[in-house]
Amino acid sequence: MDKLLDKINSPDNLKQLTISELNTLSAEIREFLIDSVSKTGGHIASNLGVVELTVALDTVFDVPKDKIVFDVGHQSYVHKILTGRRDKMATLRQFGGISGFPKRSESKYDIFNTGHSSTSISAALGIARARDLDGDNYNVIAVFGDGALTGGMMYEAMNDAGHSHTPLILVLNDNAMSIAKNVGAMSAHLRKLRMAPAYFRSKVVVEKILNKIPLIGKGIASVIRRIKRFFRRLVIPTTMFDDLGFTYMGPVDGHDIEALIQYFEYAKAEQKPVFVHVQTKKGKGYAPAENNPQKFHGISPFDKETGETQKRGETYSNRFGTAITKIAEKNTRVVAITGAMPNGTGLEEFTKEFKNRFFDVGIAEQHGVTLAAGLASAGYIPVIPLYSSFLQRAYDQTLHDVCLQNLHVVFPIDRAGIVGADGETHQGVYDISYLSHMPNMTILSPATLDQLEEMIDFAVNRFDAPIAIRYPRGGCEAKNIPSGFELGKAQHILDGNNVTIIATGRMVKRAEEVAALAGRSVEIIALPTIKPLDTKAITASAKKTGSVITIEDNVKTGGLGSMIATVLEEEGVRCKFKIFAFPDKPITHGTIDELDKLYGLDTMSILEYMNKSEE
Amino acid sequence: MDKLLDKINSPDNLKQLTISELNTLSAEIREFLIDSVSKTGGHIASNLGVVELTVALDTVFDVPKDKIVFDVGHQSYVHKILTGRRDKMATLRQFGGISGFPKRSESKYDIFNTGHSSTSISAALGIARARDLDGDNYNVIAVFGDGALTGGMMYEAMNDAGHSHTPLILVLNDNAMSIAKNVGAMSAHLRKLRMAPAYFRSKVVVEKILNKIPLIGKGIASVIRRIKRFFRRLVIPTTMFDDLGFTYMGPVDGHDIEALIQYFEYAKAEQKPVFVHVQTKKGKGYAPAENNPQKFHGISPFDKETGETQKRGETYSNRFGTAITKIAEKNTRVVAITGAMPNGTGLEEFTKEFKNRFFDVGIAEQHGVTLAAGLASAGYIPVIPLYSSFLQRAYDQTLHDVCLQNLHVVFPIDRAGIVGADGETHQGVYDISYLSHMPNMTILSPATLDQLEEMIDFAVNRFDAPIAIRYPRGGCEAKNIPSGFELGKAQHILDGNNVTIIATGRMVKRAEEVAALAGRSVEIIALPTIKPLDTKAITASAKKTGSVITIEDNVKTGGLGSMIATVLEEEGVRCKFKIFAFPDKPITHGTIDELDKLYGLDTMSILEYMNKSEE
Repeated sequence: MDKLLDKINSPDNLKQLTISELNTLSAEIREFLIDSVSKTGGHIASNLGVVELTVALDTVFDVPKDKIVFDVGHQSYVHKILTGRRDKMATLRQFGGISGFPKRSESKYDIFNTGHSSTSISAALGIARARDLDGDNYNVIAVFGDGALTGGMMYEAMNDAGHSHTPLILVLNDNAMSIAKNVGAMSAHLRKLRMAPAYFRSKVVVEKILNKIPLIGKGIASVIRRIKRFFRRLVIPTTMFDDLGFTYMGPVDGHDIEALIQYFEYAKAEQKPVFVHVQTKKGKGYAPAENNPQKFHGISPFDKETGETQKRGETYSNRFGTAITKIAEKNTRVVAITGAMPNGTGLEEFTKEFKNRFFDVGIAEQHGVTLAAGLASAGYIPVIPLYSSFLQRAYDQTLHDVCLQNLHVVFPIDRAGIVGADGETHQGVYDISYLSHMPNMTILSPATLDQLEEMIDFAVNRFDAPIAIRYPRGGCEAKNIPSGFELGKAQHILDGNNVTIIATGRMVKRAEEVAALAGRSVEIIALPTIKPLDTKAITASAKKTGSVITIEDNVKTGGLGSMIATVLEEEGVRCKFKIFAFPDKPITHGTIDELDKLYGLDTMSILEYMNKSEE
Repeated sequence: MDKLLDKINSPDNLKQLTISELNTLSAEIREFLIDSVSKTGGHIASNLGVVELTVALDTVFDVPKDKIVFDVGHQSYVHKILTGRRDKMATLRQFGGISGFPKRSESKYDIFNTGHSSTSISAALGIARARDLDGDNYNVIAVFGDGALTGGMMYEAMNDAGHSHTPLILVLNDNAMSIAKNVGAMSAHLRKLRMAPAYFRSKVVVEKILNKIPLIGKGIASVIRRIKRFFRRLVIPTTMFDDLGFTYMGPVDGHDIEALIQYFEYAKAEQKPVFVHVQTKKGKGYAPAENNPQKFHGISPFDKETGETQKRGETYSNRFGTAITKIAEKNTRVVAITGAMPNGTGLEEFTKEFKNRFFDVGIAEQHGVTLAAGLASAGYIPVIPLYSSFLQRAYDQTLHDVCLQNLHVVFPIDRAGIVGADGETHQGVYDISYLSHMPNMTILSPATLDQLEEMIDFAVNRFDAPIAIRYPRGGCEAKNIPSGFELGKAQHILDGNNVTIIATGRMVKRAEEVAALAGRSVEIIALPTIKPLDTKAITASAKKTGSVITIEDNVKTGGLGSMIATVLEEEGVRCKFKIFAFPDKPITHGTIDELDKLYGLDTMSILEYMNKSEE
């Protein structure tokens, strides 16, 4: 039988379909998604949850004239499929293929690039205000999960939007999950709303529904209305969203296309700030994902029959997790904080062993870091593992609350450097640059899993100030790293006379690879400590070899290479000098190897430079 | 007559006083504050508003065993006076004197350093959790304004705290103002609560008050209670704070010490997350401040009879304001966004002329920047002036929402460099370091007011990507800056042969001063563009003179000097090289001149280096 999906080349094609056909289409999309993402990897669970929601949105609204902003954006696959990118789904998240997130450069149906959580209402409000200034009249919709609602920006944006009466439609995709199970008072508030649906349905919707009932007639509706009006006077405002100036509608079943369409039509008609509460199930329709939505949040290619992924070797995240759990057994002052990612950061075991010393703050890195500062000021040792690109969100809290007060907070920075398939919004290539100038901050980076373990122990048990430990995605290890980490001490892992390679973290392995093929006498200096720099070791080696190459998986500006350049320049050391680092431009998606090559950080590119500079 | 205030050397002395004496004391404190701050300058209006509130807190609670965290912290003067620092108030905000903010290094009564808004609940929750882990039982109190409540971190922290049932007392000092009049839906929500006091008083307080009425007796109270219980079942949750898991109490008159003490006693007895809503008047008791709280928010020394301050010359803030207003008349795509500081950033005139193109988002820099990104994505040109230390709070939004999408948002960065009396939390010495590595970002810095005007015009009308313009507090100008700003072009403002001084912004004047006294042939290169660097001009001059000095009012790490060092090192230019910049450690309070001298950035220190290096 011909598939309906094969005929959907733009959202216009949806408008002609009946509800029953839209349901069939949704089933086909679900099947397509499972098949496609099992091959490419990607954010499968959240996309399975929003199939009907997205179909309804693209049916009711006139995109791209109407503007839909997807928060976080990893749940926009269905939208991509419906807006002419079905054929490109095989290239999803692959180098040169389409992105796993909305990209304005990719399609006119992608309105605003997202990647980090909780930005959608701010962006949508900006677009809505532009529309009003232009005297235009399209709809602007922000779609976000209840996880995103734990981020403070959402509240800042609602505070602004609800007050200004700008027509704006917020759609809450409430699946009771962030990546992990959702936390916090908002989550409890939503649960209460979900459990009292009739009571909380907004005035508008209730009355419209009542008026629609044909036989019961206006009489009963009017009595009910009068009773409701009496109660409403007492109960309004009913929800936090009403308090913030939005008209709350819902909850509505997010897998019932007819109901969704009805609600979105109502929302459209309101022409003011509206909040539509949609209940969905993460992983809907695919048993492995329904049963383990955390595993299927963002996943590498998997067997679609069994849901199994390839076993990966030990990673830095794993090792951090086992190390911190071991340390916390002995050191009872250790507490751990996560921003909604206990598993991604390796904290599963810790959460089980030390329930009362573990705090999940939600997608709220700012609060998480200052909470850590508060705990540290009262004598605890908070460890707050965050992905490099998410710690960015707490730049000010790290500087203002932790560093200026010189508090002992440990920042394990996971996914530092290139992350690969998630692409430009998730690349962790800025952290050396944004941390190195912070007062009192120390920065470490291990070249092996064992070294990470040494560093975590050092940072927790033998240090007493802000300290960050950056480590890469996966388990890339150098070969020749001796044990016995010492703060501020470089490790000479290869002696040579012609050229010095200085590298840190993942790039120490690259230095070893280059040295092995160089055909020259290479000296390798590994820097387990990025700040403070071992300036003595650096200048001594530079003077000896007369030629320095630095390699780092960070952007060049403000990175390790520039720090070394500054030392050499100020010390007046005369030598050849070359920095290998990422350029400060958006770094696209692809595998780590593909991106290293693209930006000239692979072994061959470095060898090529060395050969040329020898001439 | 002897003053009560003279006998208050620690909060213990408060416990013996009667309500009437506490009232007398409050009047004395108010008088002392006006007298003292009129001489030192400081945040007078907010402190006048919290006299009774602070007296009541320090009376009810057993500080420092009980821990009070003051949000923002500029309203902690009364607390300083009550905790043994009355005599030091004459040194407030002066170099070597006490800080205008809480400082743990200054007193055991200062629990957590603050300066930026909206951090107090996070910090207090951290302290409260440490207390619980320790099995201790003191009280933890966070005191914050309604302005702070517009910041998303507060919501993140309440979401976490309200859910976890940790005993914690939040005290809202509601004066309906941030620095300017407050904005947003939360502000409207608070207004509603203020206007319906009887209705919203919490269960606990109402019943305790009813039980206290002696003659009417238990009978009536019980009837009222039954009636109330019936209604409560319908109306709970009544406030946003109840929704977030807090027991709401209030509003209470913030100038009625007896009522305040009663409420704080109730709050203490609850032993769960409590939210006390206190209504105060900013500037209370001093007519000039009551009438113009915005002027008296943070003020330089003033005449206490008239409230007049010394007229200052034109500043960069003023010039930005007139320039952007003029530009917006012709260019109707220009919109302006402020984070609760229309006046401090020079936008007064703009707000009047272009009401519909002006948006005050509250103390919500994150939302403000992404709102700007949304507006830019829809074809407008958002200009969002922020103080350097506050733009820090939107690091991720600037990188992720503006820069990665290469959107045309203009960031005028006011108070870049040393700000002076506000001290370490407000020094704007990090922005070159935190902006220079962002993809697609351009950074300018004018050396004169006229050059600022040229740059604003360029950034708005002749550019189409993210662009920041950093300028200092005050009106410091270089002498010899020619007109005709060109992007990426250095300005040779003095030709010489022995040494090159490269400077930007405020430090170009310093370069001129040094050159005038150097007794050597100095070449001065002014850099109106910090990124992209004019590498040609820099390397050419370095080769010519063989000696380079850089001067900037930014920290050294990741700053202009290191960018120049990297260029010289990579280009293999052989020269003497020295960076003058602030160290990456907390920069204390004092005048700009005092701090330049302290850190060796004054004219004499630079001359001294030059003389030495010549030897």
